[in-house]
Amino acid sequence: MTHFDLVVVGTGSGNSILDSRFADWRVAVVEKGVFGGTCLNVGCIPTKMFVHTAELAAAPAAGAKLGVDAELKGVRWSDVRDRIFGRIDPIAVGGREYRLAHADNANVTVFEGTARFTGKRELEVALRDGSTRSITADRVVLAAGGRPVVPAGLEDVPFHTSDTIMRLDELPARMVIVGTGFVAAEFAHVFSSFGVDVTVLGRSGAMLRQEDADISARFTELARQKWDLRLDTTLTGSAVVPGGIRVDLADGSSVETDVVLVAVGRQPNSDLLNLPAGGVDVTTTGHVVVDRTQRTSAEGVWALGDISSPFELKHVANHEARVVQHNLLNPDSPIEADHRFVPHAVFSSPQVAAVGLTERAAKAQGLRYVSATQDYAGIAYGWAMEDTSGFAKLLADPVSGQLLGAHIIGPQASTLIQPLIQAMSFGLDARSMARGQYWIHPAMPELIENALLNLPLD
Amino acid sequence: MTHFDLVVVGTGSGNSILDSRFADWRVAVVEKGVFGGTCLNVGCIPTKMFVHTAELAAAPAAGAKLGVDAELKGVRWSDVRDRIFGRIDPIAVGGREYRLAHADNANVTVFEGTARFTGKRELEVALRDGSTRSITADRVVLAAGGRPVVPAGLEDVPFHTSDTIMRLDELPARMVIVGTGFVAAEFAHVFSSFGVDVTVLGRSGAMLRQEDADISARFTELARQKWDLRLDTTLTGSAVVPGGIRVDLADGSSVETDVVLVAVGRQPNSDLLNLPAGGVDVTTTGHVVVDRTQRTSAEGVWALGDISSPFELKHVANHEARVVQHNLLNPDSPIEADHRFVPHAVFSSPQVAAVGLTERAAKAQGLRYVSATQDYAGIAYGWAMEDTSGFAKLLADPVSGQLLGAHIIGPQASTLIQPLIQAMSFGLDARSMARGQYWIHPAMPELIENALLNLPLD
Repeated sequence: MTHFDLVVVGTGSGNSILDSRFADWRVAVVEKGVFGGTCLNVGCIPTKMFVHTAELAAAPAAGAKLGVDAELKGVRWSDVRDRIFGRIDPIAVGGREYRLAHADNANVTVFEGTARFTGKRELEVALRDGSTRSITADRVVLAAGGRPVVPAGLEDVPFHTSDTIMRLDELPARMVIVGTGFVAAEFAHVFSSFGVDVTVLGRSGAMLRQEDADISARFTELARQKWDLRLDTTLTGSAVVPGGIRVDLADGSSVETDVVLVAVGRQPNSDLLNLPAGGVDVTTTGHVVVDRTQRTSAEGVWALGDISSPFELKHVANHEARVVQHNLLNPDSPIEADHRFVPHAVFSSPQVAAVGLTERAAKAQGLRYVSATQDYAGIAYGWAMEDTSGFAKLLADPVSGQLLGAHIIGPQASTLIQPLIQAMSFGLDARSMARGQYWIHPAMPELIENALLNLPLD
Repeated sequence: MTHFDLVVVGTGSGNSILDSRFADWRVAVVEKGVFGGTCLNVGCIPTKMFVHTAELAAAPAAGAKLGVDAELKGVRWSDVRDRIFGRIDPIAVGGREYRLAHADNANVTVFEGTARFTGKRELEVALRDGSTRSITADRVVLAAGGRPVVPAGLEDVPFHTSDTIMRLDELPARMVIVGTGFVAAEFAHVFSSFGVDVTVLGRSGAMLRQEDADISARFTELARQKWDLRLDTTLTGSAVVPGGIRVDLADGSSVETDVVLVAVGRQPNSDLLNLPAGGVDVTTTGHVVVDRTQRTSAEGVWALGDISSPFELKHVANHEARVVQHNLLNPDSPIEADHRFVPHAVFSSPQVAAVGLTERAAKAQGLRYVSATQDYAGIAYGWAMEDTSGFAKLLADPVSGQLLGAHIIGPQASTLIQPLIQAMSFGLDARSMARGQYWIHPAMPELIENALLNLPLD
């Protein structure tokens, strides 16, 4: 039984807590997989590298109507994949080496294995070599993340999740994606841009249905033009057949494919940690319960990121890691996490970005609000791009002008959202935002300027 | 001699002043060319339509190193051009028809010709049909814009300016661009992306030398890889030669080309207006002198846009038009134009955007400042794009954290600058801006977040 000042479980955002200010703490780090967590290894970072590559692959097709004749000759899948993981894998390896061997980490012990609580701030780690180690600590940080959920009906066939799909040996001709959320939307974009025939299966009637209804509807309409959408149905079974995999649907139809990608959602890794033994409460969705300072129900135990946050976003996990870091170092003056205006983006085609309330949520909360939209087609840069489908939608309080929600579907959505995040975070009202600063003409942010001016404020 | 309540000279931003609130004013509008002004017809709008098309043409070449093999087969110049002017020309025509014939404009008389002052608020308009009309007015708004400057040495050859280059009959094989500013940088990008061999001639040693020196240096370095840059030299003469045009330089060399584009700068159209007769003062650069309410030295005469503004930017002209509009309607409660934080962008490759002071200007003003840069290569989306040359550079007051200047060179620069414009305009300090809002990971605005965090503030 070795005792530590601090144990951090998970090396995603949790790993960023340790800096020189912890140099005289005895610290243990537990990692069951590769260093760096979901974002670096199987999430945001590699997916965006694939997405950018997909956009280059899609560009030739977009040129013809503008007078530019270009042809996509081919996508060298193994080069694409190896370029991406050739950058990422060494970072994960380097992160591990740093904690294991660098002089900065003389105070840090790394346990490579899976931790389980055996008591209050008492953990048993099943190491990869089959042995176990028991450790205790004054403080424990749970940053063990989450993993993809796998639905029933795929027991008899090979399938991929976001953990493995980016490392395929070769590009398939056909892919069935089970799920309609952001992971499905991003991979459908990537693989269809690379020439793969994509079928999307969903239980609901729309893609990205957690977005504002107008955004979801527009995205679904555009998706239908590119992908074979099988919505309002469920997967009932599947089988290996000559030449591929057959996926059976509740409506009696079936789809043959080469590769199945499961993207129906993620679940927190809380179930792996035997949390009841540690006195750590979880919600019905399996998320560790935390207060606003990121403390769990167990004295001395903090949590952050996907294991406790329903947002499942790296920028939220990083923010929470800074909060936990501060609160570990300054127990007498804890700070609170700020979850008021958490934005997100979907790097599909088109891009989607949002912050704040959907119209549905504003209604459900009984808020007074006004809304306005602005099409890309109505601003000069949108003309230049011949964009005919993108728009921004804003919700605001009609009296104060405070922005309640912002939703964008179209080019650069994930960049265009930032001034709106900033306005909401610092309480800048819509009218002042529109007229109290310059908007470069004819740059893309005129979309936001015009959406703001369209709001029918009192 | 007809008398009006208001005469507006120029139909660019000046044209936007007239709305329903002027319905019972007797108004005259004078336009010597096409309706809509520089931006719509020969400036921001068509150039950006060409720039976006150029980006599609340039995309295939960018793919190879990322594993995407695409080929540019050709650019159908006449289709590109006709698509663009097929959208723009009808808007100019429609704008003219609206003022001439629409019931909304029953109170508006249009004079198509060139106006000259003959006295205080007294103008003579030389109409296109050769006749002249004399008019007087209680109020005059000068919004007559500017035009390209043509340097010596081109007396014996045909040449283009930004007024004509976009309407070429066919794409030339070779183009010499005289000038190194933003117009030169944008057209060099457009035509080289379309396959034209571009030579850029400049008197100074760098392109975009009005930008921060680090931005100008990086842009010049990248330009040198694509275009034949002949800097630190001057045009001494030119001649028509078999097969094209020869341009002679001060260093004794010469360049043969098919088309010469002059892009050395613009001058206000103030010299066409016989301003001394109207009592309207101009600066040594020919700009009409205005106070902060956009009033000129002559009672009842206002000016706005390129004729009075050294910024020569549409968003500034539009802002000033709103100020003049307010002040015409509310003479007892005039408002002032806000020229504190005027941003601009150069839609070349790479893009450049900036707001506030260059480091050179901060030094010249004796300001205390700190600066920081952040490379695109150091943020996740920059990795995804394999960008190795872009960066953001910020200047801030080390004590207050108030941003003094922001300069970006790289993808989406003209969009990424907006949160910085917003912060400067509303007095949000750098540290609060960085940490008081979320930045979507891994989206492009992380460039700004990291540049802010890099500032060595007290």
